[in-house]
Amino acid sequence: MKTSLGAKTLLYPTPVLLIGTYDDGGRPNIMTCAWGGICCSEPPCMAVSLREATYSYGSLVRSGAFTISLPSAAQVKEADYVGMQSGRNTDKFAELGLTATKAEKVDAPYVEECPVVIECRLTHTIPLGLHTLFVGEVMDVKADETVLNSRGCVDVDKMRPFAFDPGNGEYIGLEGVLGKAFSIGDQR
Amino acid sequence: MKTSLGAKTLLYPTPVLLIGTYDDGGRPNIMTCAWGGICCSEPPCMAVSLREATYSYGSLVRSGAFTISLPSAAQVKEADYVGMQSGRNTDKFAELGLTATKAEKVDAPYVEECPVVIECRLTHTIPLGLHTLFVGEVMDVKADETVLNSRGCVDVDKMRPFAFDPGNGEYIGLEGVLGKAFSIGDQR
Repeated sequence: MKTSLGAKTLLYPTPVLLIGTYDDGGRPNIMTCAWGGICCSEPPCMAVSLREATYSYGSLVRSGAFTISLPSAAQVKEADYVGMQSGRNTDKFAELGLTATKAEKVDAPYVEECPVVIECRLTHTIPLGLHTLFVGEVMDVKADETVLNSRGCVDVDKMRPFAFDPGNGEYIGLEGVLGKAFSIGDQR
Repeated sequence: MKTSLGAKTLLYPTPVLLIGTYDDGGRPNIMTCAWGGICCSEPPCMAVSLREATYSYGSLVRSGAFTISLPSAAQVKEADYVGMQSGRNTDKFAELGLTATKAEKVDAPYVEECPVVIECRLTHTIPLGLHTLFVGEVMDVKADETVLNSRGCVDVDKMRPFAFDPGNGEYIGLEGVLGKAFSIGDQR
């Protein structure tokens, strides 16, 4: 027997994405976004939803490009701070001592200090209400060599990604591996 | 200095969603989906991406409704198994001894044994390539009382959600709280 919590935005886990754009003066900016995820395998695409009121919204629409920088748990305070400020009146890179590196494949900056970054080219703009869903085709993924395992894949224990809990407004760490996908289902 | 991993689908964390639909014979089915997330706050909306080849795809389009059941770490093997089978030739609810409960607000079944479930009404269908992105307005969220905290919110330590690691094809648990959002950013 389940209890109704009403019509709301609740999902576990929800990611913490730092969306990077250049504004119309060419100044790099980042915002924190938890409404996003992978949305297509071929071509590889990411979905991120932004409110039109954000400073990044106009920059993303104008440039047709954005990056997603994935912070490590060691950067959780910086990620939270980014979500509390607006690029309209703050240079968040400067405030936090972060480095804005121009993406290689698209016209947008990423956070050099984040262990994994994704370069996206805007392909779809879908107004939904308070948020607009933007689909970006992934043009490249880059990672620090220090977070890669011997197979050249991201090692979660080294990268230390974390999640957002939209119900309680908290950040949650990710712990050890529970099992291999397309495999442990056969071990019930 | 970052290493290019190429254009691929990589994101941490990625959720593990069990998408529930009725087929055209009214039989309940579930599929595992990791390409999804919250995509709008008002109205509350969820995005899930399905391949047209899946059995659930046709059911979702026909009914205009779907549910998202969020499994607990205790159900990781069942979730993996659901992702390895097709509802075309398997009754996954029966195979796994799971209960299909008809959603209250939409014409779709959810997994009674999952701690949190989301009832969605299809509002947008956006073909992207291998996957089609479906947007569903959240009509209700339901949770087992056993996973709620004293404020009536989901307690992550009780619910034990987990994530998918698309780079390594593994499931990852979520651990303790790292900090309060819109708060710890001020404590740098």
